[in-house]
Amino acid sequence: MTAFEAQNPAFEADTRHSFAGQALMREMGVAIDTIEPGTVTLVMDHDVRFTQQHGFLHGGVVAACLDTACAFSAFTLMPADSGVLTVEYKTNFLSPAKGARFVFHGRVLKPGRTLSVTEGQAFAEDGGSSKLIATLTATIMTVDGRADVKG
Amino acid sequence: MTAFEAQNPAFEADTRHSFAGQALMREMGVAIDTIEPGTVTLVMDHDVRFTQQHGFLHGGVVAACLDTACAFSAFTLMPADSGVLTVEYKTNFLSPAKGARFVFHGRVLKPGRTLSVTEGQAFAEDGGSSKLIATLTATIMTVDGRADVKG
Amino acid sequence: MTAFEAQNPAFEADTRHSFAGQALMREMGVAIDTIEPGTVTLVMDHDVRFTQQHGFLHGGVVAACLDTACAFSAFTLMPADSGVLTVEYKTNFLSPAKGARFVFHGRVLKPGRTLSVTEGQAFAEDGGSSKLIATLTATIMTVDGRADVKG
Amino acid sequence: MTAFEAQNPAFEADTRHSFAGQALMREMGVAIDTIEPGTVTLVMDHDVRFTQQHGFLHGGVVAACLDTACAFSAFTLMPADSGVLTVEYKTNFLSPAKGARFVFHGRVLKPGRTLSVTEGQAFAEDGGSSKLIATLTATIMTVDGRADVKG
Repeated sequence: MTAFEAQNPAFEADTRHSFAGQALMREMGVAIDTIEPGTVTLVMDHDVRFTQQHGFLHGGVVAACLDTACAFSAFTLMPADSGVLTVEYKTNFLSPAKGARFVFHGRVLKPGRTLSVTEGQAFAEDGGSSKLIATLTATIMTVDGRADVKG
Repeated sequence: MTAFEAQNPAFEADTRHSFAGQALMREMGVAIDTIEPGTVTLVMDHDVRFTQQHGFLHGGVVAACLDTACAFSAFTLMPADSGVLTVEYKTNFLSPAKGARFVFHGRVLKPGRTLSVTEGQAFAEDGGSSKLIATLTATIMTVDGRADVKG
Repeated sequence: MTAFEAQNPAFEADTRHSFAGQALMREMGVAIDTIEPGTVTLVMDHDVRFTQQHGFLHGGVVAACLDTACAFSAFTLMPADSGVLTVEYKTNFLSPAKGARFVFHGRVLKPGRTLSVTEGQAFAEDGGSSKLIATLTATIMTVDGRADVKG
Repeated sequence: MTAFEAQNPAFEADTRHSFAGQALMREMGVAIDTIEPGTVTLVMDHDVRFTQQHGFLHGGVVAACLDTACAFSAFTLMPADSGVLTVEYKTNFLSPAKGARFVFHGRVLKPGRTLSVTEGQAFAEDGGSSKLIATLTATIMTVDGRADVKG
């Protein structure tokens, strides 16, 4: 595993600020667990409001949280004042999202000036156990000089 | 375009019933617009609670709605009493999800006994205009004989 | 369907020239059928050298041809002297690649200055019949000012 | 990392036999490096016949080899007499495929009775260096009782 170095000294504060601007994350009760250069981990408690018809957390919610963790993991390595946009992602659901709490890890696989490739893994926790329930690969874009896409 | 025939005579009622069981869709104010064999269209008004940091509808919300439209489009062609699960999906974001109302089309490209391949397109509407903002391809599984995965 | 306009007047000759530089296409006997702004169609006869263990054309060959059709469909809309690179793709195999001849359509869904989103469809032909066997979505990048990535 | 156990005692011989049936692999000079339960590694020397227009190994070749490594990694965990089919895959190209030799690792992330989720990584080697050039995620299907899809 390569360790990355952030070029923006305020990467952590900027990531927290941008994350705080995501109404969806607030609405779903998602919180930042850890931020490191190239890695972001989010956590969320199970919430019946966001389930699908079998009572599991909706796959779309799992993917949205993984995408967010991945996008911000790329953001930690961007220059100050960049904007971050998800170009595309692909997600595989390995097991139903059944648990008391969910953990979403996002990490940069390959940073780039314009495009970064990131990978995410979602875990469902229940009692002492933790189970891998989904993976996601996202291509993230650094947006420069657009006032409407900052952070 | 091939027209499909439903093998479950109650496909529409069963799809509405299963959709009604998705707390996430209710929470986000998503409604069914049309159901045909092999096609489901969902609609949603813009809601600031589900936005990302630039004020657009969160990409994860767009993908969740496309996934749902696609999964139910496959469900319309399944035998009665089947369960429906998303195996995986891939989504491309073409333009920011900026609009007053969003339309999510899902359709079956290739139905199968076990796996169906589906495609979705999301449009943002504003005034009289409609703009393609995202596409999604999903692999959907027919689940048989599992009491916890019905509908 | 939007019709696109090419900004490079020599788009067709440049596409043919770049395609001719792909040793893989020559090796597999793939030829250009049509080139239009935003659309490229390739054709290939069945060749036992490029099959998998069940005697069908290898899925990787199908995907490589679809990727190539998609990448060049984006190239037709790029400025003169651009380089074209595939960022990522996703492919679904709908039916075994069983036929006498294969047709690969690539088209631009959304052109962009840096990134273009493209879609491809592969058909297997046998006698008078034509069957959709695979789809592919590719993100294509316009590369500017790199001598080693031209065409 | 979970270690997997093969249920087919002849998994290695059966994998070698099925791989030997892939004309494409033979044609491109791809060889098996290692086979373990849930993991297959393939190797290939650079070959100008399989390049794209910038002189790099064609991305479609990289993806075809990754898909093959992934499919056979799933095959090692299947019951004897199963057939293996790739349902879909998604690949990201991180760096140009420029090197003297290429290594393709495929491994099972989540085995399943019907579907297995696998991940692949491709490396370009040159002199003593090794560089990650592409990743791939593939959904692989176990096919049972079809005489035309065995191995």
